[in-house]
Amino acid sequence: MSADKSRRTRKELTHLDEKGRARMVDVSSKRITARIAEARASISMERETLDLILADGIGKGDVLGTARIAGIMAAKKTSELIPMCHPIAITSVDLDFKVDKKASTITALATTRTRDRTGVEMEALTAAAVAVLTVYDMCKAVDRSMTITAVQLVKKSGGRSGTYMRE
Amino acid sequence: MSADKSRRTRKELTHLDEKGRARMVDVSSKRITARIAEARASISMERETLDLILADGIGKGDVLGTARIAGIMAAKKTSELIPMCHPIAITSVDLDFKVDKKASTITALATTRTRDRTGVEMEALTAAAVAVLTVYDMCKAVDRSMTITAVQLVKKSGGRSGTYMRE
Amino acid sequence: MSADKSRRTRKELTHLDEKGRARMVDVSSKRITARIAEARASISMERETLDLILADGIGKGDVLGTARIAGIMAAKKTSELIPMCHPIAITSVDLDFKVDKKASTITALATTRTRDRTGVEMEALTAAAVAVLTVYDMCKAVDRSMTITAVQLVKKSGGRSGTYMRE
Amino acid sequence: MSADKSRRTRKELTHLDEKGRARMVDVSSKRITARIAEARASISMERETLDLILADGIGKGDVLGTARIAGIMAAKKTSELIPMCHPIAITSVDLDFKVDKKASTITALATTRTRDRTGVEMEALTAAAVAVLTVYDMCKAVDRSMTITAVQLVKKSGGRSGTYMRE
Amino acid sequence: MSADKSRRTRKELTHLDEKGRARMVDVSSKRITARIAEARASISMERETLDLILADGIGKGDVLGTARIAGIMAAKKTSELIPMCHPIAITSVDLDFKVDKKASTITALATTRTRDRTGVEMEALTAAAVAVLTVYDMCKAVDRSMTITAVQLVKKSGGRSGTYMRE
Amino acid sequence: MSADKSRRTRKELTHLDEKGRARMVDVSSKRITARIAEARASISMERETLDLILADGIGKGDVLGTARIAGIMAAKKTSELIPMCHPIAITSVDLDFKVDKKASTITALATTRTRDRTGVEMEALTAAAVAVLTVYDMCKAVDRSMTITAVQLVKKSGGRSGTYMRE
Repeated sequence: MSADKSRRTRKELTHLDEKGRARMVDVSSKRITARIAEARASISMERETLDLILADGIGKGDVLGTARIAGIMAAKKTSELIPMCHPIAITSVDLDFKVDKKASTITALATTRTRDRTGVEMEALTAAAVAVLTVYDMCKAVDRSMTITAVQLVKKSGGRSGTYMRE
Repeated sequence: MSADKSRRTRKELTHLDEKGRARMVDVSSKRITARIAEARASISMERETLDLILADGIGKGDVLGTARIAGIMAAKKTSELIPMCHPIAITSVDLDFKVDKKASTITALATTRTRDRTGVEMEALTAAAVAVLTVYDMCKAVDRSMTITAVQLVKKSGGRSGTYMRE
Repeated sequence: MSADKSRRTRKELTHLDEKGRARMVDVSSKRITARIAEARASISMERETLDLILADGIGKGDVLGTARIAGIMAAKKTSELIPMCHPIAITSVDLDFKVDKKASTITALATTRTRDRTGVEMEALTAAAVAVLTVYDMCKAVDRSMTITAVQLVKKSGGRSGTYMRE
Repeated sequence: MSADKSRRTRKELTHLDEKGRARMVDVSSKRITARIAEARASISMERETLDLILADGIGKGDVLGTARIAGIMAAKKTSELIPMCHPIAITSVDLDFKVDKKASTITALATTRTRDRTGVEMEALTAAAVAVLTVYDMCKAVDRSMTITAVQLVKKSGGRSGTYMRE
Repeated sequence: MSADKSRRTRKELTHLDEKGRARMVDVSSKRITARIAEARASISMERETLDLILADGIGKGDVLGTARIAGIMAAKKTSELIPMCHPIAITSVDLDFKVDKKASTITALATTRTRDRTGVEMEALTAAAVAVLTVYDMCKAVDRSMTITAVQLVKKSGGRSGTYMRE
Repeated sequence: MSADKSRRTRKELTHLDEKGRARMVDVSSKRITARIAEARASISMERETLDLILADGIGKGDVLGTARIAGIMAAKKTSELIPMCHPIAITSVDLDFKVDKKASTITALATTRTRDRTGVEMEALTAAAVAVLTVYDMCKAVDRSMTITAVQLVKKSGGRSGTYMRE
């Protein structure tokens, strides 16, 4: 990587100022536009653990129900958790779960929306990550080896940088 | 899985009551003991992104420095984020980063300690997860495809359930 | 209730999606308008307790003064407390108390305002409720039987659903 | 009430100092003991609203499931909401709902536990109150006239002041 | 001061209503404009303490790096800390440090920006104050006599009251 | 300062590890003892501003009453604000104000207590600092030049490092 390219690219590490110090990017002059982000987080576990979560009965789905609410509430805490995130007027958070019995994995899919000067990618990632951390918490007494195997942005749209879609 | 085994195992899904409803486990009668937990979270990225993070200069390490503080502060927020977690008198949080240039991956390793009636696994997992989410946030302008590839408990000791060590 | 009506009405339980799962309603396309809400909360107590609160002296009104501030600050925490509430740009919170000596009751009256995409009813209800909970806290050493007898929306205006006024 | 009695009783308004100013009571020298509190909060509504909440289907109980989690999480926020409350090592929160179809009322019953120097009455009251406020939030689009009709302490035990039981 | 002047001026103590009670000023009808505020906070210390903070080595700047992040995150908490502050859509926070070796003093300089209905003076003051409190915390084991010697608004612009510049 | 002395003293910068990185000190093995801290914060202002704060009338003291509650609540938020602070079981917070009419200054004096493994100096400093920041907020419309002139620890006792008393 040439020094020149480094200089150019570094400018894009927008959370560091010209001296490399952390800062909250100034979005004052950005336009208010509709912005959407989708992120997912997966947790793999023992087959038996998954069975327990899905087991029929009165409590059906209470692990996932709790994880959903935890994720939605966490999205609203994003700017408290991630130091350089702006407080954002989130207009919607949706959290859905997909169960893959073969892989013994649960995937949380979070969609966040806003009409603000900056995007909601971190809100979607935080919602999905906290949802699966909550699954871990509720099942850890039976299975400490559960692993969060992937947390990633799936898609985002709106704002100057346009649309991103994971291949 | 036999109904009998299901019944026995279900009792261990301690965050659900006998009707399957979420609850905060009663730890009133547990003993106060020294408890330690270690968790790790890895984030993989473009080689160029890793180079930027590690680049020499005045700001050296500010991405990881910020991520470290974010993780430590997040550990203290665990009981606000994870619905069934108890508020805990954390006595220490340590966050270290390991860089794997070949794999183009950064791993956050969090160690949490307490002397309380319940453990600090969730605190360690939350610290590690928020640390790498912060890395994502600070670099997302140059690399939206970064992926958190693993968040898992490495080890825990103390308490009635004894020591756990990931194989 | 006919299935048909149920279907129509269910759609209005806007915090549940079509599968009955909790979600934060998408207000992205709602218009920013001026919105006002008024709510009240009453607490009844022993006559002697009320006398103590109202007693002359240097500390006059410090129970209610503390309750007012608690209520105002709680309004700003509404979206942290109520899972499906949106974070809102509250533009004003007012908290007033009415004392009914005959009924030995104090009523907190909260008025909240915003110019945002959704209303501030929950903010007004939360402010009023936390104000009287604070009265309870400050007097509980002398009167544990105090009861919050009513928390309700008095009025709201602004937004697509128009004006509501309690009869 | 004689001046003398006023003086004596005032001392019991322990959240006011001798000049009547708000303060957080010093509990440093109180003993650590097991403490339990139970509180309840009721919300009355249109019969049709109750039917919707109880309606069979996939989403069964999601209003109450969400309200339960909101209440449990709120218990942990009590010392942030009520100005003179001490931060407390809550060891358990339980939230149950009783439905009275005749009265068209839902009652949240919260039980909180700790082993600390002060009690958990405010935690139980806050959990119950926020649970029914959440019910209000999730149903307000169909029924703004819902009223929280009673929030009160049912019972508490532990600590120097001993056991209280509502008659 | 004449009664007349008092009356006029009192109206400007906008956080008190006409009865002198605390309230959150109604900014609903204020215009959304670009607003900037700058504040500074200084902390003086033993010369030896300053040397330690500035000492060369791997940890260079970690005290100030931590203080910077603490200040930025505190700016986002302003409306939770200052009872009558409005929640504000902060668009930027910048924190810089100036070291005066002769005076053995570090000065934090915070700049906050928003496009909202009210200003960000309190956000800048809070950021600067918490930054130097963090310096105190990180060095208190070697120097308990450190003193925060000045926290003040340097400049603010935007809004109806126009520009203020400290002389 | 000799290298040798630097090494010794550096060990005392206990919030930095041997590589100079921020960390939360491990207090697991410290003894639980009674700990008290006192801190003060002063704010100087125009004489006219002080007169307004002290003016007779119904609202008497509401600026200071609000500042007192803000300071007490802020003490409970210390570990959220100061990155390396431990969550602490605060057992008491007291906030008093001294008015110096000649110097046109108000001084907040905060006393905090705990029985825990670490001290409450930062809690006292935070309480005092936020109290005077609140005074600033409530009066800034009439006097933007107010300055916080000193925030400092007055005294602390308890713990291994013993008693500190400012000269």
